Amino acid sequence: MTRPLTKAELRVILEEVAAEIRPRVGEGAVAAYIPELAKVDPSKFGMAVTTLDGAVVAVGDADEPFSIQSVSKVFTLTLALGRVGDALWRRVGREPSGSPFNSIVQLEAEKGVPRNPLINAGAIVVADVLLAGREPKAALGEIVGFLRFLADEPDIVIDRDVARSETATGERNRALAHFMKAFGNLGHDVDKVLGVYFHQCAIAMSRRQLSRAGLFLADAGRDPTTGRAVVTAERARRVAALMMTCGHYDGSGDFAYRVGLPGKSGVGGGILCVAPGRGAIAVWSPCLNEKGNSLAGSLALEALARRTGWSVF
Amino acid sequence: MTRPLTKAELRVILEEVAAEIRPRVGEGAVAAYIPELAKVDPSKFGMAVTTLDGAVVAVGDADEPFSIQSVSKVFTLTLALGRVGDALWRRVGREPSGSPFNSIVQLEAEKGVPRNPLINAGAIVVADVLLAGREPKAALGEIVGFLRFLADEPDIVIDRDVARSETATGERNRALAHFMKAFGNLGHDVDKVLGVYFHQCAIAMSRRQLSRAGLFLADAGRDPTTGRAVVTAERARRVAALMMTCGHYDGSGDFAYRVGLPGKSGVGGGILCVAPGRGAIAVWSPCLNEKGNSLAGSLALEALARRTGWSVF
Amino acid sequence: MTRPLTKAELRVILEEVAAEIRPRVGEGAVAAYIPELAKVDPSKFGMAVTTLDGAVVAVGDADEPFSIQSVSKVFTLTLALGRVGDALWRRVGREPSGSPFNSIVQLEAEKGVPRNPLINAGAIVVADVLLAGREPKAALGEIVGFLRFLADEPDIVIDRDVARSETATGERNRALAHFMKAFGNLGHDVDKVLGVYFHQCAIAMSRRQLSRAGLFLADAGRDPTTGRAVVTAERARRVAALMMTCGHYDGSGDFAYRVGLPGKSGVGGGILCVAPGRGAIAVWSPCLNEKGNSLAGSLALEALARRTGWSVF
Amino acid sequence: MTRPLTKAELRVILEEVAAEIRPRVGEGAVAAYIPELAKVDPSKFGMAVTTLDGAVVAVGDADEPFSIQSVSKVFTLTLALGRVGDALWRRVGREPSGSPFNSIVQLEAEKGVPRNPLINAGAIVVADVLLAGREPKAALGEIVGFLRFLADEPDIVIDRDVARSETATGERNRALAHFMKAFGNLGHDVDKVLGVYFHQCAIAMSRRQLSRAGLFLADAGRDPTTGRAVVTAERARRVAALMMTCGHYDGSGDFAYRVGLPGKSGVGGGILCVAPGRGAIAVWSPCLNEKGNSLAGSLALEALARRTGWSVF
Repeated sequence: MTRPLTKAELRVILEEVAAEIRPRVGEGAVAAYIPELAKVDPSKFGMAVTTLDGAVVAVGDADEPFSIQSVSKVFTLTLALGRVGDALWRRVGREPSGSPFNSIVQLEAEKGVPRNPLINAGAIVVADVLLAGREPKAALGEIVGFLRFLADEPDIVIDRDVARSETATGERNRALAHFMKAFGNLGHDVDKVLGVYFHQCAIAMSRRQLSRAGLFLADAGRDPTTGRAVVTAERARRVAALMMTCGHYDGSGDFAYRVGLPGKSGVGGGILCVAPGRGAIAVWSPCLNEKGNSLAGSLALEALARRTGWSVF
Repeated sequence: MTRPLTKAELRVILEEVAAEIRPRVGEGAVAAYIPELAKVDPSKFGMAVTTLDGAVVAVGDADEPFSIQSVSKVFTLTLALGRVGDALWRRVGREPSGSPFNSIVQLEAEKGVPRNPLINAGAIVVADVLLAGREPKAALGEIVGFLRFLADEPDIVIDRDVARSETATGERNRALAHFMKAFGNLGHDVDKVLGVYFHQCAIAMSRRQLSRAGLFLADAGRDPTTGRAVVTAERARRVAALMMTCGHYDGSGDFAYRVGLPGKSGVGGGILCVAPGRGAIAVWSPCLNEKGNSLAGSLALEALARRTGWSVF
Repeated sequence: MTRPLTKAELRVILEEVAAEIRPRVGEGAVAAYIPELAKVDPSKFGMAVTTLDGAVVAVGDADEPFSIQSVSKVFTLTLALGRVGDALWRRVGREPSGSPFNSIVQLEAEKGVPRNPLINAGAIVVADVLLAGREPKAALGEIVGFLRFLADEPDIVIDRDVARSETATGERNRALAHFMKAFGNLGHDVDKVLGVYFHQCAIAMSRRQLSRAGLFLADAGRDPTTGRAVVTAERARRVAALMMTCGHYDGSGDFAYRVGLPGKSGVGGGILCVAPGRGAIAVWSPCLNEKGNSLAGSLALEALARRTGWSVF
Repeated sequence: MTRPLTKAELRVILEEVAAEIRPRVGEGAVAAYIPELAKVDPSKFGMAVTTLDGAVVAVGDADEPFSIQSVSKVFTLTLALGRVGDALWRRVGREPSGSPFNSIVQLEAEKGVPRNPLINAGAIVVADVLLAGREPKAALGEIVGFLRFLADEPDIVIDRDVARSETATGERNRALAHFMKAFGNLGHDVDKVLGVYFHQCAIAMSRRQLSRAGLFLADAGRDPTTGRAVVTAERARRVAALMMTCGHYDGSGDFAYRVGLPGKSGVGGGILCVAPGRGAIAVWSPCLNEKGNSLAGSLALEALARRTGWSVF
């Protein structure tokens, strides 16, 4: 491991990456099945890196909010592990699914136990865990509060239009939830669980906020700016391991191969990427590849990893 | 990243790990479907670590040979990438399969293209690549020669009894090969390709040799004792990334979660594990868990990673 | 085709069949997942045959009502074909599924189009067709009215307790419905469609009524007692063909092999069987085999077909 | 059941059917994966009906031979049941597969037991049964001899060019065979079993011969011209039942729905169809629909069944 890059060096690299990737922005397609997301400007692209010292280096408007969608799964997983610890793994697996994000096939043979917490079915189980003993509003309050705490910014909110849009079009997620409930793997009403899930996906954050919120995963569970432990080092590493093997659905292997860093994508076009010992990166570009991951975002992270040497391997 | 462990510290850790894991040795079952492997003493257990300076620290008899089986796939993949580069990815994917090592299901929907080069079907395609323009004997000569070069020891050989045993019982691999040939994804005769594949699996190596042979993956493609490049840094990282996401079949996610290091298991009970910037580890214990990976070996690597802090995350 | 059996001959045969099968009654298990069905006396067994002349020959209490469950799918399919004709086949297939009655796997690859109208998913699409332009109450009114008309008895009703029990435990059916709705293959609210579906399954009929109601399928679509056409000969034959290939889920092939007659089973333990040119048979025995079909009922129909020579083959 | 059609009436019907279907001949595509079959003239079309009295009515050249391919499975199944009786069902199922003729997916979950004897995997098991205690040549001798006996014609032979072509291109069948052998469901060498299988598929018969050979299935197991029993009535009915539910691969349900008669198709474009109590029909037209069944042949049988009222339902 070589010396950390200076802020100036990192800025140059980000600008080079942006210049390299810009021509590809707009390739692929914005997620069409959630109408509110389909309205987003497909030419958006930007990255923000928060380094371990808390500094932010960015290209593009680092303060523009976007819908984090499935990136939220990293944070709800962290909360659920805090609540129930390893008991979570009785209800959800830790293996890549080899299937699309919303696939139901595997659930039938495996009796309602989703492969991992970063695909839709698994995140719905995680939402169910977070609901224990309270109403959706309270669970969502904890999720948003956790993100505000991690990002150290009070103005992170749920985009109500997006939440409504997800609710209106969430039939496959309803199917997943009822299917798991049939196997006894959902403790609460499907509507309540999906209320949490749809709203967590509709949280809007800026690249600055998201990269800041993910920083604890780059420093063994601590907030490096305060030195306070968010989670244990072991837990942080394990969440990162799940991001590596499962963070991009059936494109996870390719992302690990090309980027070499743990990451989690969202259908809104965001990706949170963790460079252990270096920092956390948030990239946003709404057009998706055929696996449902940000096309330009993935390419940008590949270019960034190549230039910085931040691959974990 | 903290300072490297001294040889003495590492030896203490290995002994602690061995003491911790010893009671679990013998749990699980020796691979029964290859008769020659079924003869192995199930109480065997040992680890060897070769650190970047070329030093070897071991518990158990580091010089006792065992059948490396699917661990060989890491090396044939490296050779095949050297031969055809990214053209390999037109014939094999880079995704975890979510299926057992010898599953054929995915090949039907995906028209004869295996999910990754570290499952049987993928490794058979890799063997086909290595056959181009020559006979099985020559291809095997290159494979064994590569391992001798990497391990810096001339006495690595193929165990003919094991090879015969694999050949006699390799019906599922024959099915995989013929199925891929039906889709035009095998250029040579099935018998020749499987001749290479069965014999590469039957290579016998000691823990010392295997950890030494994997060292280039821990130092960005270089042999750290000589400084000579074996492969480019990018290629070494990518092979390691594939080991992380695909190295333990449908137990890869769990291994990444518990160990946090790229690894590749073999049905003979061996695992090669790479700790980037630290060294390479070879563990051997013949009894397998239900996914076909060494049970005590996996536990030992988990304990080692916990005690050394070598997780890449 | 030999001369029709006399009523006396048929009575003797039925009694022989009953004597032969009686020792097997109680083998298997009553459907446990619908609590109201789980209360049924597992020792029940009886058969009623309505011959083309309208005569009823029975063993056991032919007037005891039972929950017809999926046997209702034959009648809703007939109604839906009457409403939309071959347009139905744009929304549901005509192939055996090779999968359990409540499987969701096939729906994913085939984009929300169920394999046939006699598995749950297909019958839910059929219920959706019957809802067009009206409320569930009206659709159910038509279904019950059709059964009363066919059975020529006014006292066929929906068992409200069973309907409530199905509604309370119908999570897999909800999953199927939402999944199909995600693919645009359901026009109405899931709750309304399932309202129809759960209630049609909860219709209670006696063996006498059910065998009478199925008689039109044994006489090329006509009610042989009145000579009036219920459906065209072609439609009646086609419904019977679907019963033959798809009427017993993933046990359809075995039923055709052993019985040789078109039949449709329900999880309540009833089977409606059609002997073209002879009559219709209703058998009821609540304990199910591992495919979810009445165990003693299937055996009784096999014995009946053997003794009568009524196989269509 | 109405009075039998006269020979003159049947001839008129066949001519009407031919006129109706002729414009569709050439739609679809000749099987391309067996080169020798790909040479066949795609404009061929003809039907022959052998009625219970042994009379033959035909349109087109009833004496032109074609490759019967999978139609042979009906006859090898009959022979295997004669050899081992119900013990066959320990090695092969009786259910429609819901999958293409050469699918391997189901074999993995069901541990090498094919769904039914009329798909490739199942017929390979049947060939293995016929090999017991002898060489492929003897087994083939029995098969050809059985067909000569049934057709009452001595000049039925195996087309060596077609057999060679099948052998050269049979990789998927090799995969199926090795896969089943891995599960212990094949007693002989794969090469020998496939030797039988490839050659039985290459048998050439004329429509006259094939319809004559199938006649025993239309008369409860007897040869109606001699009155001698070929098999028991029960066995004949059961073979016909399997043809109904499984005879057209994943198009079996549709064939039953449209035609209403047991049938078995071959990739050479032939279909043998049984009209119980009436006769047996052989149709040949080489262009296949997307399920691998003769397109014009299926349509012709549908038209024939409509005009004759021969549906079993």
